[in-house]
Amino acid sequence: MTAHYLALSGGVGGAKLALGLSKICSQGTLSIVTNTCDDFTHLGLYIAPDLDTVMYTLADVVNTKTGWGRADESWNLMNVLKTIGGESWFLLGDKDMAVHIERTNRLNKGESLSAVTQALTQALNIEHAIVPMTDDRVQTMVTTELGEMAFQHYFVREGCQPKISSIRFDDIENARPSPAFTAAIADPELAGVILCPSNPFVSIDPILHIPGVRDMLNKLKVPIVAISPIVKGLAIKGPAAKMLQELGKEASVYSIARHYKGLINGLIIDTEDAPHGPTIEAMGIRVKVTNTIMKNLDDRKNLAATTLQFIQDIQHDKL
Amino acid sequence: MTAHYLALSGGVGGAKLALGLSKICSQGTLSIVTNTCDDFTHLGLYIAPDLDTVMYTLADVVNTKTGWGRADESWNLMNVLKTIGGESWFLLGDKDMAVHIERTNRLNKGESLSAVTQALTQALNIEHAIVPMTDDRVQTMVTTELGEMAFQHYFVREGCQPKISSIRFDDIENARPSPAFTAAIADPELAGVILCPSNPFVSIDPILHIPGVRDMLNKLKVPIVAISPIVKGLAIKGPAAKMLQELGKEASVYSIARHYKGLINGLIIDTEDAPHGPTIEAMGIRVKVTNTIMKNLDDRKNLAATTLQFIQDIQHDKL
Repeated sequence: MTAHYLALSGGVGGAKLALGLSKICSQGTLSIVTNTCDDFTHLGLYIAPDLDTVMYTLADVVNTKTGWGRADESWNLMNVLKTIGGESWFLLGDKDMAVHIERTNRLNKGESLSAVTQALTQALNIEHAIVPMTDDRVQTMVTTELGEMAFQHYFVREGCQPKISSIRFDDIENARPSPAFTAAIADPELAGVILCPSNPFVSIDPILHIPGVRDMLNKLKVPIVAISPIVKGLAIKGPAAKMLQELGKEASVYSIARHYKGLINGLIIDTEDAPHGPTIEAMGIRVKVTNTIMKNLDDRKNLAATTLQFIQDIQHDKL
Repeated sequence: MTAHYLALSGGVGGAKLALGLSKICSQGTLSIVTNTCDDFTHLGLYIAPDLDTVMYTLADVVNTKTGWGRADESWNLMNVLKTIGGESWFLLGDKDMAVHIERTNRLNKGESLSAVTQALTQALNIEHAIVPMTDDRVQTMVTTELGEMAFQHYFVREGCQPKISSIRFDDIENARPSPAFTAAIADPELAGVILCPSNPFVSIDPILHIPGVRDMLNKLKVPIVAISPIVKGLAIKGPAAKMLQELGKEASVYSIARHYKGLINGLIIDTEDAPHGPTIEAMGIRVKVTNTIMKNLDDRKNLAATTLQFIQDIQHDKL
C-alpha cells in the first residue's frame, strides 16, 4: 500500500511546501487542496490567486522573486489597460492573463473549477493533483476600519494596511467540498493530512469551514499536522502576524497551536520557536522543531521530508 | 455652417479612407459609422474587429503592415493560451487584448457598445466620432460549401477558402441604428455620406440592412458617394472579388455600381477602371476617376479630398 498525502494550502507559503512535497512524493500520491475563498471576479475574469500560485510553482514557471505570477512575464496588456481607463490595481501579466481568460471561458461554458484546474495542470505537466477546495463560489470578506471589503481588495488594493476586526467567508455555508477533495479524505491509502504554512485565517480556515470538512478530518485515523506560518512572532510572508494582533491574539506559534487545537495532532515549529514547544505539547499537540524557513528548493524538500516523517512518527506512536 | 460628413466603414480598406478624412476634416465634423456585424464572442470576450481597426488606425497605433491589430505588439498571452489548450486561430496580441477585456467588462456591466466605443476613442485621443452601426447584437453568417459559419470563422479560421453561396445578417431585423448614427443622418449640417472602399457584402451591407437606415439615407438631400473597393477586377484587400464571383457576379466596378444603384449618387473608381465610367454613368450614377489605391498617408488624404470635392460637385450640380 502506497502512502497518500493530502495537503491543504493557500498561496505563496503553502505553495513552497507543496513544491517540496511534490518532489518527494511519487506521482499520484499527493493531493494539494487549495483555498478558493480569495478568488474573485475582476475585469470580468475569474481569478484564482492561490490555485495559480500553487500551479505555477509546481509547473516551475512561477516568478521566484515574488512567489506569485509567472517568471519572464511581460505587462503590455496591463500598460494599455491603464491608458484606456481599466482597473489596474491588481497586476496581471500577459502570460498569466492567458490562464484567467481560458479558465473564465471554460467556467462560463459550464465546466467546474475542478475540471478546469485539472485541464490546466495537465497542460502544464504537473504530476500531482491540485484541487480547488470547492467548485462553489465563496468569498472571503474582511471587515476593516474602512468597512467590509473582499479579500483581494484588502490584500492587494489596500496593501493590508487597514486594521481588521473580523473575517467571514461569504456563502461558505452553501459550499460543498470538491469531489476530488472528498475523495482524497476518504482515500483508504491516505497516510496523513498536512496544513501547509499558510495564513490560518484566510487560507486554511476557509477550507476547514466548508460544511462537513472538519467532521471528515476529525474522523480520520491518520495524523493531521500543521506547519506554523509564524516564526518568532512574525509571518514569513503576508499579513498573518498583523491579523493575529488586530484580532486580539498574540502573534506567536502558541496562537497557531490554539487556533488548530482539536484538529491537529502535530505542529511543526521553527527552531527559533523551540522554547514554545513544551507549552504546545502540554495542549496535547505533538511538536516537531526544525528549520521552517524555505529559502531554496532543498529547504522545501527537507521540510516536506520532515513533515512526512513527523506524520509517520505520530502514527507509529498511536499504534 | 460647417459641412459635416458621415462615412460608413468596414475594416482595413475603410479605415484607410477614414484616416484620410480624419486628417482633412476639422474636429467634430466627421462621424465614422462602423460595421459591427463581424463582431463575435471569442474566448468569452466581445471582439469588434472593424471598430478596432478604425480606432487603432485613427489613434495611429495600428500595425501598418497588416492594417489590423496594434503596432509593436507582443504575443505572450496567445503563446501561453496555445499551450493550455485555448483556441488560438484568431490572433490576439497582448496590447490588443486590453481593449477586448475592458470592452467586454463594460458591456457586461450594462454599458452600450456606443458608450464603450466613445470611452475608448476618447482615451486614445481620437478627435472624430467612431460610432458602432448598432448597439444591438447582430452577426454575419456565411453559407459555404462547408456549411453555414459565422463571419470570422469563414474569414480568419478558414482563410476565406470555402466557396460561399449566400450571406445573411443574423438578427439584423431587430437591430436599431445606434443613437449617434441616427443623429449623424439627421444632422442638419450633414453635407454628404461616404461609403468607404470596404467590402459591400459583409462590411457596408450590414449597415444598410439595419431597419430604417436605407430609408433615412434615401430621404437625404445631400450626395451619397461610394469608393469602389474593386480595382481592375481585384479587391485591394480581402475576399470581395472572390465573393462577387461566387455569388455569380462579375468582379468589376460595374458590379459595385449595380450593387449600390438606387442609393448612391456618385461612385469613385480607379484610373485603371476609367473605361467602365460611361457604362456606370449611363446607370444614373456620377463617376469620378482617380487613384484609389492608398499606399501612404498622402494617398489617403488625397482620396479623402477628392471624395469631399466630388460630394460638393454633385451637390452643386443638383442645385
